[in-house]
Amino acid sequence: MLLNEMSKDELLNFKNSQQQKYDEYKSMGLSLNMARGKPCTEQLDLTLGLLDAVHSESSLLASDGTDVRNYGVLDGLPKAKVMFSQMLGVEPDEVIVGGNSSLNMMYDSVVRNILFGTDGESKPWKEYDRIKWLCPSPGYDRHFAICESLGIEMITVPMLSDGPDMDMIERLVSEDETIKGIWCVPMYSNPTGITYSDEVVKRFAALSPKASDFRIFWDNAYCIHHLTDTPDKLLNIMDELKKNGKEDMIYIFASTSKISFPGAGVAAMAASKKNIKYILSKMTVQTIGPDKINQLRHYKFFGGYDGLVEHMKKHTAVIAPRFKVVIDALEKEIAPLGIGTWHNPNGGYFVSFNSLNGCAKRIVSLCKEAGVILTSAGATYPYGNDPDDKNIRIAPTYPSLDELKTAMEIFVTAVKLASAEKLSD
Amino acid sequence: MLLNEMSKDELLNFKNSQQQKYDEYKSMGLSLNMARGKPCTEQLDLTLGLLDAVHSESSLLASDGTDVRNYGVLDGLPKAKVMFSQMLGVEPDEVIVGGNSSLNMMYDSVVRNILFGTDGESKPWKEYDRIKWLCPSPGYDRHFAICESLGIEMITVPMLSDGPDMDMIERLVSEDETIKGIWCVPMYSNPTGITYSDEVVKRFAALSPKASDFRIFWDNAYCIHHLTDTPDKLLNIMDELKKNGKEDMIYIFASTSKISFPGAGVAAMAASKKNIKYILSKMTVQTIGPDKINQLRHYKFFGGYDGLVEHMKKHTAVIAPRFKVVIDALEKEIAPLGIGTWHNPNGGYFVSFNSLNGCAKRIVSLCKEAGVILTSAGATYPYGNDPDDKNIRIAPTYPSLDELKTAMEIFVTAVKLASAEKLSD
Repeated sequence: MLLNEMSKDELLNFKNSQQQKYDEYKSMGLSLNMARGKPCTEQLDLTLGLLDAVHSESSLLASDGTDVRNYGVLDGLPKAKVMFSQMLGVEPDEVIVGGNSSLNMMYDSVVRNILFGTDGESKPWKEYDRIKWLCPSPGYDRHFAICESLGIEMITVPMLSDGPDMDMIERLVSEDETIKGIWCVPMYSNPTGITYSDEVVKRFAALSPKASDFRIFWDNAYCIHHLTDTPDKLLNIMDELKKNGKEDMIYIFASTSKISFPGAGVAAMAASKKNIKYILSKMTVQTIGPDKINQLRHYKFFGGYDGLVEHMKKHTAVIAPRFKVVIDALEKEIAPLGIGTWHNPNGGYFVSFNSLNGCAKRIVSLCKEAGVILTSAGATYPYGNDPDDKNIRIAPTYPSLDELKTAMEIFVTAVKLASAEKLSD
Repeated sequence: MLLNEMSKDELLNFKNSQQQKYDEYKSMGLSLNMARGKPCTEQLDLTLGLLDAVHSESSLLASDGTDVRNYGVLDGLPKAKVMFSQMLGVEPDEVIVGGNSSLNMMYDSVVRNILFGTDGESKPWKEYDRIKWLCPSPGYDRHFAICESLGIEMITVPMLSDGPDMDMIERLVSEDETIKGIWCVPMYSNPTGITYSDEVVKRFAALSPKASDFRIFWDNAYCIHHLTDTPDKLLNIMDELKKNGKEDMIYIFASTSKISFPGAGVAAMAASKKNIKYILSKMTVQTIGPDKINQLRHYKFFGGYDGLVEHMKKHTAVIAPRFKVVIDALEKEIAPLGIGTWHNPNGGYFVSFNSLNGCAKRIVSLCKEAGVILTSAGATYPYGNDPDDKNIRIAPTYPSLDELKTAMEIFVTAVKLASAEKLSD
């Protein structure tokens, strides 16, 4: 029976029974964490061999004869560039292979444009009184934190089932020269789990922004992170941009953080040759170059892009059952009551749950009191402000299956209780 | 006989004989590089075991239970913090252990202050029309490149035998609120090889800059990089600053780039607790954190600070003979002619050579034509402008002993030829 079709008495009984159940969970003093998209220990163990891939007997010369231990090679080892070029769908000379954090490469890319502009010709973004950024939401809180920290005004753009609202994006960028960028997680979007349709990608590639220095920040973090045998497919945006002569409009990012080790993976970015040349001209002042030994370690362990893709099947085997626990709990306990919606993703790291309006904060708070930590309600929106107070990001990968089952029991109980409270208001 | 005491004929004969010698070297088609402070392969091999220090059977938990493979720990592994705190002469909670590049930490520290200010109270440096920086010179070209890239006006401060000209520094910082920083390599200075005297360090620690957000960038890159059994001693500046209640005035930097691997070492910075807290509040938006596996690898291989210090003796054994080749050549070939001065350093990576005024560019150019690459003349001064055109940085570590001997033969020949040309002008 749908909760909003219950009589007043039925709703009161329902609420009381959920309250009782919740109090029982609360008394158990649990400590479970579904807050961050963090791989579990089983996943980390899948690449233990990476630690042995470069050892004291290994050849430490790159294909061009460079000693990977010494200084130099700002744009990354040639073989690592090839590996990431295939992952990112670009040419090897459109790639910079960096350190361990793609977030760091994104942050630095925004800061670089603030300080210097995008190409040495257009003016540095710092010379504007204020610049703005488009933020498809629900989205990734760490993207939004970069804008907030740097004083960039964020404009929320609704996420639809096939990508962000392109009508709104096309209109806004064509009108406002101070809109300088947009955050996109085009595949298995964080947190909604959807993949941009071919039409959405084509519309991105055809954008005609008023600002010539507008940049799409294409964070393809989950490009090979499938959960099923029927993965989503994402159109290659660089190919589409090149067809339109607009390849300077994009920066693409990815890393092995959720393939090898979150804290010790390898990150990369891709951009047009013109952009790469300009970026390297600034990076050469910033750093002595990336950790090439770790790049070699990754190349040797995976043996190239095909090895990366193959390896991801092992991750799927570990985490797909976790996603099933989440989806099963929601389908069994929430669907019949009509008090929430979600998308069952084919990949990525999250299940994005939408409660009844005005319930997300209450649900997250109830869970927290019962020892289940979720991403803060609102975190998936700019300035932490979810206008409907309904979106909650569930990250199922880190807890064990048993922990996750318990955590989801508590979660659905909290959803039921908060919904009953709301409806009986 | 001193070159400037030769008769016109003697000088002409000398010049002709050097020209002949030079032409012979030139015809040999050599390719030798003394341009950068780059460790040689023998040095890199000293830490080959580092590559085996963390392997697939290792415990991957930090002392606080953190899995070093996963996300988190923005300020570095606790044990790595202890190791660097001893190296930098501060408390462990005054340290951030970072990625592979201390230059990157310096650059980011300047940029952070440009964007946000130093402490959340004083205004961001970007809000000034122009800020200025003090640059003791000869100094490190990559320091100067950071200022130049970021549009910071550089003021050259003469380097004396016991550190930079403190009279000038005290006067300038007390007068000008737009002077926001100074570059220092206080021990085995790059390139002059001298170590700041106790008095100089105390005067730094007692500075009363007009700008409350003035920062000393104390790049202690060579703090344990001794070449002799009678190493220099550097007074602990953080202790001195604390005595004066001025500990917020400094950022200290170092790395293992010239201890383990130049491209895959571990860098760290130290600052007051107040500064560290503020810096971390900004860094948490910038990155997911440093590569903790590489930090663990270093900690395990060296076993702590004492192990680092002990290990440096192996480097000394490799590179001290190279410095001897340079000094011997200069003493034998240049000293008797009175056409150059230099300091015989107790540590560090360079011999700083001063030719007759107006000869440095010519010497570097002659060397280049004969296949010996030196750091560009002028590079050791802001904007590449050595007012006397006399300073040349010699980096003896990378070539083999035989190569170095040949390179120095060519170098002294070039010095003699250029000097004779100059004096016969």
